[in-house]
Formats: sequence, C-alpha cells, structure tokens
Amino acid sequence: MAEFTLGELSKQLKAELVGDKSIKIIGVAPIEKAISGQITFIANPKYKAYMESTKASAIIIDHKIGLEPPLPYLKVTDAYYGFLQTFLLFNPQKKLLKLGIDQSAQVDSSSKIGENVSIGANVYIGEDVRIGTQTQIFPNCVILDDAEIGENCILYPSVTIRENCKIGNRVILQNGVVIGSDGFGYATHEGRYHKIPQIGRVIIEDDVEIGANTVIDRATMGETIIKSGVKLDNLIQIAHNVLIDENTVIAAQTGISGSTTIGKNTIIAGQVGTVGHISIGDRVQIGAQSGVSKNIPSGQIYFGYPARPIMKTKRIEAILNNLPDLIKKIKVLEKKIASLEKRATSD
Amino acid sequence: MAEFTLGELSKQLKAELVGDKSIKIIGVAPIEKAISGQITFIANPKYKAYMESTKASAIIIDHKIGLEPPLPYLKVTDAYYGFLQTFLLFNPQKKLLKLGIDQSAQVDSSSKIGENVSIGANVYIGEDVRIGTQTQIFPNCVILDDAEIGENCILYPSVTIRENCKIGNRVILQNGVVIGSDGFGYATHEGRYHKIPQIGRVIIEDDVEIGANTVIDRATMGETIIKSGVKLDNLIQIAHNVLIDENTVIAAQTGISGSTTIGKNTIIAGQVGTVGHISIGDRVQIGAQSGVSKNIPSGQIYFGYPARPIMKTKRIEAILNNLPDLIKKIKVLEKKIASLEKRATSD
Amino acid sequence: MAEFTLGELSKQLKAELVGDKSIKIIGVAPIEKAISGQITFIANPKYKAYMESTKASAIIIDHKIGLEPPLPYLKVTDAYYGFLQTFLLFNPQKKLLKLGIDQSAQVDSSSKIGENVSIGANVYIGEDVRIGTQTQIFPNCVILDDAEIGENCILYPSVTIRENCKIGNRVILQNGVVIGSDGFGYATHEGRYHKIPQIGRVIIEDDVEIGANTVIDRATMGETIIKSGVKLDNLIQIAHNVLIDENTVIAAQTGISGSTTIGKNTIIAGQVGTVGHISIGDRVQIGAQSGVSKNIPSGQIYFGYPARPIMKTKRIEAILNNLPDLIKKIKVLEKKIASLEKRATSD
Repeated sequence: MAEFTLGELSKQLKAELVGDKSIKIIGVAPIEKAISGQITFIANPKYKAYMESTKASAIIIDHKIGLEPPLPYLKVTDAYYGFLQTFLLFNPQKKLLKLGIDQSAQVDSSSKIGENVSIGANVYIGEDVRIGTQTQIFPNCVILDDAEIGENCILYPSVTIRENCKIGNRVILQNGVVIGSDGFGYATHEGRYHKIPQIGRVIIEDDVEIGANTVIDRATMGETIIKSGVKLDNLIQIAHNVLIDENTVIAAQTGISGSTTIGKNTIIAGQVGTVGHISIGDRVQIGAQSGVSKNIPSGQIYFGYPARPIMKTKRIEAILNNLPDLIKKIKVLEKKIASLEKRATSD
Repeated sequence: MAEFTLGELSKQLKAELVGDKSIKIIGVAPIEKAISGQITFIANPKYKAYMESTKASAIIIDHKIGLEPPLPYLKVTDAYYGFLQTFLLFNPQKKLLKLGIDQSAQVDSSSKIGENVSIGANVYIGEDVRIGTQTQIFPNCVILDDAEIGENCILYPSVTIRENCKIGNRVILQNGVVIGSDGFGYATHEGRYHKIPQIGRVIIEDDVEIGANTVIDRATMGETIIKSGVKLDNLIQIAHNVLIDENTVIAAQTGISGSTTIGKNTIIAGQVGTVGHISIGDRVQIGAQSGVSKNIPSGQIYFGYPARPIMKTKRIEAILNNLPDLIKKIKVLEKKIASLEKRATSD
Repeated sequence: MAEFTLGELSKQLKAELVGDKSIKIIGVAPIEKAISGQITFIANPKYKAYMESTKASAIIIDHKIGLEPPLPYLKVTDAYYGFLQTFLLFNPQKKLLKLGIDQSAQVDSSSKIGENVSIGANVYIGEDVRIGTQTQIFPNCVILDDAEIGENCILYPSVTIRENCKIGNRVILQNGVVIGSDGFGYATHEGRYHKIPQIGRVIIEDDVEIGANTVIDRATMGETIIKSGVKLDNLIQIAHNVLIDENTVIAAQTGISGSTTIGKNTIIAGQVGTVGHISIGDRVQIGAQSGVSKNIPSGQIYFGYPARPIMKTKRIEAILNNLPDLIKKIKVLEKKIASLEKRATSD
C-alpha cells in the first residue's frame, strides 16, 4: 500500500505546507468520512464546519477560500483538483495498453512511429503517418495517409483520423471521435447537388481534448483549426473552415457552422447552434440551446433563441411569463375607456 | 414453410382464444391484404370497418379496443406487438453471429467468457473482463480491462466499452454506442483548463437498450447509473454522474448534463437539454426541444424553452400568435384616449 | 508538374472558352494572388475590381454574373465548383486505399464482390453481401449479412451497415455512419417497455452522401427510404420508417422522428427537430433549430420554435424585441385613463 509524508505530498501537488512535513499519510477520503492517517479536502466553504470535527490527519484547502484549519494543511489553487491528484497517487490508474505495436495492428512501413508508443489491436495506420513519442492509440482506431500526431496523445477506441490532418501534443481524443471528414459543400446545378471536393485538412494544436463521437470536418480548402487548450465535449459538430481559438470550451451537442470563427477563452454551453461565416469574440459566454445568427463582440454574455444579450433575453422572458396578466390588464383598460366614452357621449 | 394452429399461436402470444383452436394458420398480413389461411390484426379502432370484409382466417385484437370480430380471434394486451411476435414466428430472424470466438478476435487470457457466447471478428477484450452466457458481441467492438457484461446482451458493431464499466443482463447496445468515456471536467488555473481525472465508472442495469452513437460518460468519482428498463434512443449525451431511474425513456439527441438525476417512468422527448445538478421526478413528461433549467416535481408535464408547465407554455404560445392583433388593439386604445383627452381639455 | 492548354481545360470543365485555346496554364490561384501562367476565378461580383488588375493568364467566371473579363476566360455554371475541379486537375488526390481485399479483412465466401473493389484492413463482410464494382470500403467498416452496396461507393473508416440494408450507386458514407440500427419502438405493458422487433430495413438510393456519425434506423416493418441525390450532414438522426425524397438537403444535428415523410428539393437547416407521422412537402425551407410539429405544405418557408411561416415568426420576434417598450406604453395608458376617470368623477 502506498504511503507518503505530508512533505512529499506538498511537493507533488506544488502546495504550500503548514504543519509537520514528516506526518505519514496512507490514504484519502471525504472530510466527514476521513480517519486518522488520511488526508481530506475542502473546496467549498459550506463544508467549513467539518474542519473542526474531521478525524483526518491533514487537509487540502483552496488559497481563495481563506480558511485556517486547526490541523496540518496543504494550500493549493484548486482543492478539488488537488484532492483528485492525491487520490491518483494512492490509487494509480492501471495502464490499459501495452507498450509497442500489437501484432494485429497494421502500420505502413513508410510511417514514422516515435519511441514508447502504444498501438493497440486492429489499429490501421496508412502511409507516411508520423506519430510522436509516448502516444497511445487504442484498439480499432484508423489513421489515414499523411496524418501527423504529436507526443503524449491518447486516442481512445474507434477514433478515426483522415488523410493529412495534424494533431499536436498532449491531445486526448475520446472514443469514436472523427477528425477530417468531408465538409458539407455542394454546388447546385439544375436542381441537383454536386459535391465540392473537400481538399483542405484539420489542424488540432496542443493540449486539446475532444469528446466522444464529436466530428470535426476538414476544410474545403485550407484548414479547420482548433487552437491549443480548447476543450470540446461529446457529440459536437464543427463544420469546415471553422477556427476555434485558444482555451475555448464548448459543451455537448453544440454545432458550429462553416467558416465561423470563435475567439479565445470563450465558453459555449450545450446544444448551441451558430450560423456560418460569423465571428464570436474572446471571453464570450453563450447559454445553452442558444441560436446565434450574428457576430458577438468580445466579453459579451448571450442567451436565447435567437441569442440576445442575456439581460434582454431575461427581461423578455419575465414579460412572457406575465403575458396572461398583461392581456387581462388591457381588457380592463378597454372597459374603462368604453365607459369613459359612453359618459363623454352622454354628457 | 411454417404452419401453426390457432391454439398454438394463442399459447405463444399468451392470448385469449375465441374460436376453433384447430384452425391452421400459414402466414400473417395487414388486414386489407390478408387472404384465407393468414392471421391479421387490429390495433387501432379506425380500421374496424375492415373487420367485416377481411379474408383472413383469424385476427389479433387489443383487449382495450373491445371489438367482437365476426371471425376467430386472439385477444392480447397489445395487438401490434402480438402481430410482430406472430410475424417473427413465421419469419424467424437469421442468426447473424456464429457461436464462439472468431479467430481474429483478441481476448485476454485473464478474462472470463461465459458459455454460448458469440464474439465476432476484430473484437478486442482486455484484461479481467467478465462476459455472461449467451451474450453476442458483433465485429469491431472494443471492451477494455475490468469491464463486466451480463447474460444475453447484444453489442452491435463498433460499440466501445471503457475500463471498469458494468453492464447488466439482456442489455442491447446499438452500433457505435460509447460507454464510459471521460466526463467533461476541468479545473481552471490562470485562464487554462486542467483535466480533472475521471476515475469513476458507468453502471448499466438489466433490460436497458441504448441507441446508435449515444454516449454515456463515466463518473468523475463514483458512478453514472442507468437503472433497469431504461430505453435511450440514438445520439443522446449522458454526462458524468447522472442517474436515470427505472423504466425511463429518452428520445434521440437529448442531452442530460452532469450530476442531474431523473426519476422512474419518466418520458423525455427528442433534442431536450437539461442543466446539471437538477432533479427531475418520477412520471414526468418533457416535450421535444425543451430546455430544462430547474427541478421538475414528479408527475408534471413540462414543455418549452425555457421549460414551463405545458399549459403555461401553450397559453404563452397562443398569446404570441395573437401579438400582432394585440399591438393593433393597443394602438386603437391610444387613439381613443387621445380623443377623450382632447374632448376633456376642450370641455 | 501538370500543364494544360486553355482548350483542354475548357473541355474538362465543359466550359465555353473565350480567348486563345493554345494558352498554357500551369496552376491555379485566388484572383489577388495569381501570377502569369495561372488560372483564377470570380464566383462573386464583389471581386469584380480584381478582374482588371489580376496577373492571371485566364479566368473562370459564372454565366449568371454576366462579366466580360479583359483576359481569356472560361464561362461555367458554377465558377467556384469549376475552380475546385481545376484545382484537382493540377493537384490530383492521392488514392488512399489499395485495390483488392486486404488480407486482414474477413469476407464471407458466400458474398459477391465486384471488380476493382478496395476493401481495407479489418473490414468484416457477412454472408450473402453484394458489393458493386469500384466501391471502396475503408478500414474497420462492418457490413452484416444480406446487405447490398452498389457501384462506385465510398465507405470511410468505421462505417457500419446492418443486415439486409441496401445502398445504391455512387453513395458516400463518411466516418462512423450507422445504417440500419434498430428503430426506437416499444409496447408498454404494466409500466415496463417491451421491444417491438425492428424487422424492416433501410434503402439508400443513388448519389446520396451521409455525414460522419449520422444514424439511420431500419424500419419496424417495411423500409426507411433515402431517395436519390439526398445529402445529409453530420450527427443527424433519421428514425424508423422515415422517407426523404429526392435531392433534399439536411444540415448537421437535425432529427427526423418516426414515419415522417419529407418531399423533394427541400432544405432543412441544422438542429431542426420534427415530430413523427407528419408530412413536409417539396421545396420547403426550414430554418435552424426549428421545432416542426405539423405538416408543412410544399414551397413554404418555416422557422422558429414552434415552427411557423417565417414572416410570422419574424414579426413575433420583432414585437418581442419591443415588448419592454410596449409595457411602458401600457403603463402610460393606465395613468392617462386614471387621470381621465378622476376628471370625469370630479365633473
């Protein structure tokens, strides 16, 4: 069983230690269940009361909460994250893939595979593919010709990456992700649709994570670009020639139409849709199920169908809730006016 | 060609037989096309007229419709279901997978595979996986370490199940289903997102069916739970730590956000979205494309964006349809008042 | 490097040539970047100004724009499409799959495979499948028993096709497409759901393209039908027994519920939902995220949640935007009436 001193833990978590660094910790537990020898955490001030009564030997707390626990503690930026890191130290995750290339995998001899790569069963890797060191590719993934994948990436089962696409370092692709499918483009001629060849590609930069069964189409020409630090949830649609800038986060089932650009550090909730060829700024927030049909400037909070500045949508919603009362009010006014008119006529 | 007596059919369908049990039936057909020797059905009273003119030798009817057909009949709880069961008796479905483990499948020697299991081509099964008797796993499925699958399950092609997840008995997973992908969780630090390890799992109980390309994320810690009898349609998103209670049905493309719980026997239509950390009760009904941002008590019917009690949404919708008229009405009132004011002043 | 005369290009594009057919063209470029020896294009009149200053040796223009360029030109129906065709002539796309059946593919001996077919790694093809000439099936696709696929089709990686389904000629299925999963149908009995066997199939006619991870369910009985020339984008849900008629186009993440029929040459935007058992006509247009709960006659443009004729939705939206003003207006009326009433009483 794993055992760490508080001093060792503070180094691992890059935490400030207050208390005896030689205290031995043999496990982690939630604050109300922890026993002597375990470390616990407080990420939310509402659990403050437990701080006095916990039997834990130490506690991980948030800098920003500003508590002074009556037991040894580690101060970190995010106590919940620190707790999970500690949990992993005591419960290391099982390595799911063996190092090396599974004998059932098919890797073209022209491809360059880095050191310490794991390639699972039934993986197909085409011609002139490059794969960086330490990358793990789970069973039944397919990577077509001339694709490039960086270092320390994880491709979970059944990910498919089409020809020419480029994936950076430390990218995580959850099960069933599709990178580089053809964009949806047709020229119409006499009532029929003729496919416009989609000859561009997809570029995914470093530290991106993409959720299960999400699809990112290749560009018609040029590139569909997902910049570094972007996080996409499950079942998202990213159309051809979209650009999503750094550290933007998008929740499940949202769809971004062709050639739209999204700025940095923007947050888009689930099931949002945007039209094509618009520009959404930096630090924008868009509420769930919104329908965005126009540019949104940086820093704005939008919500609704159609998407409007959130205060405007909320005001309209409040009025809608009171519409039945408004109708009654107007009926009262009509009666009063009729009565006033009658009176005026009879004068 | 198959042949059954009416008595044999009544046993197979657990139906009440009215008429001669020795009548021979050699096929099934819709009521207006059936010929002598065939059996037909009425599930909808509007087809009652055909009952007199059909050439069928017998008919399957619903208890609840309360018809008295002028030919031999079988009374069942659901005539349409009874008809389909009868169809299958006369047209048994082809067994698509051979018994046993295909030679191209890769099954780790530490895994325990039950009797009469079918495992198709290119299936990958990791370490310490347990699979119950009679379960069928179609080609190109992937099941990672320590997963458990019960008896009599069907996993259609390209289903992927991640480490540690647990699937009950008689569960059907349609093509491309993803069980146990990482939940969408990040801690923010200096404008960047840091992955919160998703160390929980997914538990799916007995008699669940999940539609094609639907995704169920594993819990951050603990479990995402789909209880027995739940039916999920295609392309649904179930986020981490969600709980869906028994016999609830959810239609295609709906998304349930993290840590939300949904009660028993609830019905959620397609393209609905819910926020996270809310509670939806038992026997709730939610209309298509609704946006649910608050708890819904048991037994309620909600609809709309935002979701409101359906009568309220319908009233608001009716008023919206008449808004142009309302605007006119207010203009008339303004004129009348102006005229009254003028008159009052001129008095 | 490739080289064509203008005369050769005009033949390839079926274009009308104005100018010297012997001019040699060695490449393509956008109008503001093109140099001597290259051909360029104008698809949009707003780039007209560049026509005078471009250094290109020739230009591709649209019939309908009606420009008279001061340099040799090719007149075509769609200049953008013509440009892309020309691009491909100069930059031929790499053949990604080798001819023949990969040794790791598993093709049942009862299946009939046409000439010049490419079948990639780890493909599984069941019993009595028929595949037409020139069709390409990428790695890790699965095709179950009795399915039929026509000539010149492309199935990208991880497509799965279930038993009995029929695909026409020149059909393109992007990565992860599911054809023929079970429809979502249950008979309820004592609060539990019992699966209705889905014994129908899917028929996809010629020249259809289907986007990544889109799902088309098989019919309960009979057929789910996608007629010739239909184009479906990514992550779409087509439920059992739907019929989509010729040359209709549907954008990403839309869902069509069971037994609904959609006419010819109709255009449906992204994230639209329709209820089941309705009929949408020919040449209909439906705006993004609309919720369609009733039949729509041919030629109509609908939009909104609920979907209404677009002019009605836009009028309601405009009024909603002005609702706060309307509330103020009514308050003013109330005051005026109170004042008139006071005056009347004091008379």
